[in-house]
Amino acid sequence: MPTRIVILGGGFAGVYAAKRLLKRARRCGVHDLEVHLVNRENYLVFQPMLPEVISGSVGLADTVSPIRRLVPGVKLHMRDVESIDTANRTVTCSPGLRPKPLILPYDHLIVALGNVTDFRGMTGLAEHAMPFKTLGDALALRNHIIRLLDEADTETNPEIRKQMLTFVVAGGGFSGVEVIAELHSFVRRITDDYANLKRDDCRFILLHSRDRILPEVAESLGLYAQRLLQKRGVEMMLNTRLAAATGEYAMLGDGTRIPTKTLVATVPSSPNPVIEAADLPKDKGRLIAESTTRVKGSTNVWTLGDCALIPMPDDKPDKRSFAPPTAQHAIREAAVCADNILASITNKPLRPFTFKGLGSLAALGHRRGVAQVFGVKLSGFFAWWMWRTIYLAKLPGLDRKIRVAIAWTIDLIFPPDLVQLRIGKTSGVNHEHFEPGQFVFEQGDLGDRVYIIMKGKAEVLIKTGDNGEAKKVAEIGPGQYFGEMALLHRRPRSATIRCTEPMDLMSIEKGDFTALVMNVDAIRTAFEAAALARGEK
Amino acid sequence: MPTRIVILGGGFAGVYAAKRLLKRARRCGVHDLEVHLVNRENYLVFQPMLPEVISGSVGLADTVSPIRRLVPGVKLHMRDVESIDTANRTVTCSPGLRPKPLILPYDHLIVALGNVTDFRGMTGLAEHAMPFKTLGDALALRNHIIRLLDEADTETNPEIRKQMLTFVVAGGGFSGVEVIAELHSFVRRITDDYANLKRDDCRFILLHSRDRILPEVAESLGLYAQRLLQKRGVEMMLNTRLAAATGEYAMLGDGTRIPTKTLVATVPSSPNPVIEAADLPKDKGRLIAESTTRVKGSTNVWTLGDCALIPMPDDKPDKRSFAPPTAQHAIREAAVCADNILASITNKPLRPFTFKGLGSLAALGHRRGVAQVFGVKLSGFFAWWMWRTIYLAKLPGLDRKIRVAIAWTIDLIFPPDLVQLRIGKTSGVNHEHFEPGQFVFEQGDLGDRVYIIMKGKAEVLIKTGDNGEAKKVAEIGPGQYFGEMALLHRRPRSATIRCTEPMDLMSIEKGDFTALVMNVDAIRTAFEAAALARGEK
Repeated sequence: MPTRIVILGGGFAGVYAAKRLLKRARRCGVHDLEVHLVNRENYLVFQPMLPEVISGSVGLADTVSPIRRLVPGVKLHMRDVESIDTANRTVTCSPGLRPKPLILPYDHLIVALGNVTDFRGMTGLAEHAMPFKTLGDALALRNHIIRLLDEADTETNPEIRKQMLTFVVAGGGFSGVEVIAELHSFVRRITDDYANLKRDDCRFILLHSRDRILPEVAESLGLYAQRLLQKRGVEMMLNTRLAAATGEYAMLGDGTRIPTKTLVATVPSSPNPVIEAADLPKDKGRLIAESTTRVKGSTNVWTLGDCALIPMPDDKPDKRSFAPPTAQHAIREAAVCADNILASITNKPLRPFTFKGLGSLAALGHRRGVAQVFGVKLSGFFAWWMWRTIYLAKLPGLDRKIRVAIAWTIDLIFPPDLVQLRIGKTSGVNHEHFEPGQFVFEQGDLGDRVYIIMKGKAEVLIKTGDNGEAKKVAEIGPGQYFGEMALLHRRPRSATIRCTEPMDLMSIEKGDFTALVMNVDAIRTAFEAAALARGEK
Repeated sequence: MPTRIVILGGGFAGVYAAKRLLKRARRCGVHDLEVHLVNRENYLVFQPMLPEVISGSVGLADTVSPIRRLVPGVKLHMRDVESIDTANRTVTCSPGLRPKPLILPYDHLIVALGNVTDFRGMTGLAEHAMPFKTLGDALALRNHIIRLLDEADTETNPEIRKQMLTFVVAGGGFSGVEVIAELHSFVRRITDDYANLKRDDCRFILLHSRDRILPEVAESLGLYAQRLLQKRGVEMMLNTRLAAATGEYAMLGDGTRIPTKTLVATVPSSPNPVIEAADLPKDKGRLIAESTTRVKGSTNVWTLGDCALIPMPDDKPDKRSFAPPTAQHAIREAAVCADNILASITNKPLRPFTFKGLGSLAALGHRRGVAQVFGVKLSGFFAWWMWRTIYLAKLPGLDRKIRVAIAWTIDLIFPPDLVQLRIGKTSGVNHEHFEPGQFVFEQGDLGDRVYIIMKGKAEVLIKTGDNGEAKKVAEIGPGQYFGEMALLHRRPRSATIRCTEPMDLMSIEKGDFTALVMNVDAIRTAFEAAALARGEK
């Protein structure tokens, strides 16, 4: 029987642990080893380059690397992890193409699941804020921005035009700063292609909850980045929290509403629910590890990366400190973990994690950046050049390195591409949030969705005659639905729906709704009864 | 008041007409011209390179060009066309971000809507066949193939593994042949990255309804392509029609079932519904045009490209012939049309369409191709080299040319990328087709969808005890639903569902279904009553 190691998560931590295990096994005297890796995608995301997907300055596929080629010999399962059973030493994964769950037994388990974006508890964010964590997120943001510019170019209502051209990013850490810088530079560079857009029509806002951005680096560097972005025209709203979001505006802690169609939230990451449910020691959702990366109290469960609390070498009982959630730490943790697993199989002593970190780098667009390396602080062109050089060197695979180097060169000469790669199917079901006073739709609009109220209230207004005033004819609440009559009878919306209490809606697309209603008697009856009760005919 | 020209469709025909109109207007004495173009995407798809998206040998964005940059000055509306009103000289477009329809008045209208993929009337094709027409289609196919290889690598059931590795393309025209050639070459080149996959595990099948492929070129070239692909291992099924499809197999005209998860159908294209509905003369859904490209009997409606019937110069009353649906013809039609519109505005004589065509080119993968240019027939490496040279020259934009040339060079040296760019959200609602004997799911499976029967019948089977035989407990038909109990109570499927009469299903994803049921009383009651009636608890 081979020794079977199961790794959960295909980020830097998981992938580099698998790599080290397969490379060192024989040398350490472990001859029959099977390494399984469970990850939703078949690639590793090279996070530092993700913001460049917005402007398309590097190719889409170049920001990620296929795991099979990074770690030849690993058994890759493209699944979601559903649960960990430490008593029976198994992991249950979601079904793949076939509806059978996959159960993987393990001798050693490495938990490197990272964290997840979680907007729960933040009003309207799940529905209307865009996360920025995966390749899909980055591409969705790019497409969204291009669509807005395309629409704004022919929009005649100045209010709506302004709203379309206001871009808000929440979170002034590395990720938020790099996103607003890239977004700003991309929009500025392509507005020339739009006949009716001027550079100054666009507004860029960075929201941050503290009094200076980039808390990860020294104060002087944070202030440098702040001034640089401000000079370019990015508005900084410091000491400001995001309170809620709707499809029409972002609401701040003090009640201010910023009309916008683009809200990127880089802040809220929360522990992985699989870890929360597992029978393992944790603190605020992160697994408590020894300095050997082994989970406290366990003999064969290990943890790495953003989901782990690994003590730093200078960690003292009175002043605890843990390895920060960066790629450079994850890679070193992975090496320690792999070596220790092999040592524990061959009954050799384990070694502790001792890496202290090299420094931090952030790109600010337009050939500017900040860097703090081995305690030395750098800013401006040289820091940007260092950023590019270091990350290019770290990018796995020679073909990728060549492609990115060429893409960067082309990008210095030609303007960015403005193709909107709308490739995903639009979902048949959407979720939306509305605040009081907002309109879901207005009488006379063209209808293509049916809405169901999950929470909150709205009023139904009908205008009679051409200049008649809108009269309230009904109030609707949870469990009620509206908008279906326009579809059943193929005509414009017969009433206006205005939100009166904060409201969560679920909407179903025309075609799917029609199929449902036409085929299921009970549903048709229910929808028709509801419409009658509201006085629509 | 400017003269307003509205162009419907952003393919080669529409884009090149817009370009010519804007370029020639002043010279022809038309000083106040407004050119509007309505297209769903903001880019022109460079169709010949679309198959290369499968292997990723050219960048995703390089197969398309942004219309704004191709035609500076055009007013681009990213909408669907809903209807044409020739009496009032307006076009109605679908709503954009706001739910207001867009109504464009016109002085001259150019209809260049092309055709649409249409699987209607072909059992199961709409649900399970993949079209190959847009950038989204090409990317979806790539991702699907990589997903199958990833799954097959760890699949233990040999039947299912074989099914996953069988790739079927229907249609032996240019598009079908280029797709199977590219698909074959891509899969062959990446199987080495999978520990458990061998090259010969994969099966490639090309279905074609006539007795030789590539009817567009001379017989000798078609036979050359046929022999070449056969030698590489592509199975040719000639004189064979596709009759139906399910999620598990493709069914041929003679009833043969080919177990597969991949069926690409390049054949069925049908007229655009907007044209069918318009009050304009047409034949089999294509608009009847004069040789000036003006629609017969009209003064200000013109038509171009795949949706138009434009007489060829050698057209005779006893032997009618029309311009074929290729890019080279569309571009020449566009020039004639633009010139004639300007001439009709300035009351000058119109000129007829006289272009006879240059020839045809097809790439067959592995540096082989066929070409027929000015009557000269070529095959093999030189035809492939010509294909690359000609299409590279035709690709719009210097930056794209450079990027594609570099990508091709890199592709000659490095193996293709195997990153699965799963970027679209999975839709909340799916449509599926089943044939008698197929299982929708089996008792004990993990459930993540609820099913509603639109058409057809199934039986509900329950196995009692560990070795008990499955007993039929109910029969279900249209309007009935199943699969919901597994979600409400979070446990594996409590019964097996087997199709007894050809069945169309609609399924809703777990999360959306739960939200619907939890919030809408009538729906919950309806679903619970149905479950009780079937004897589930």
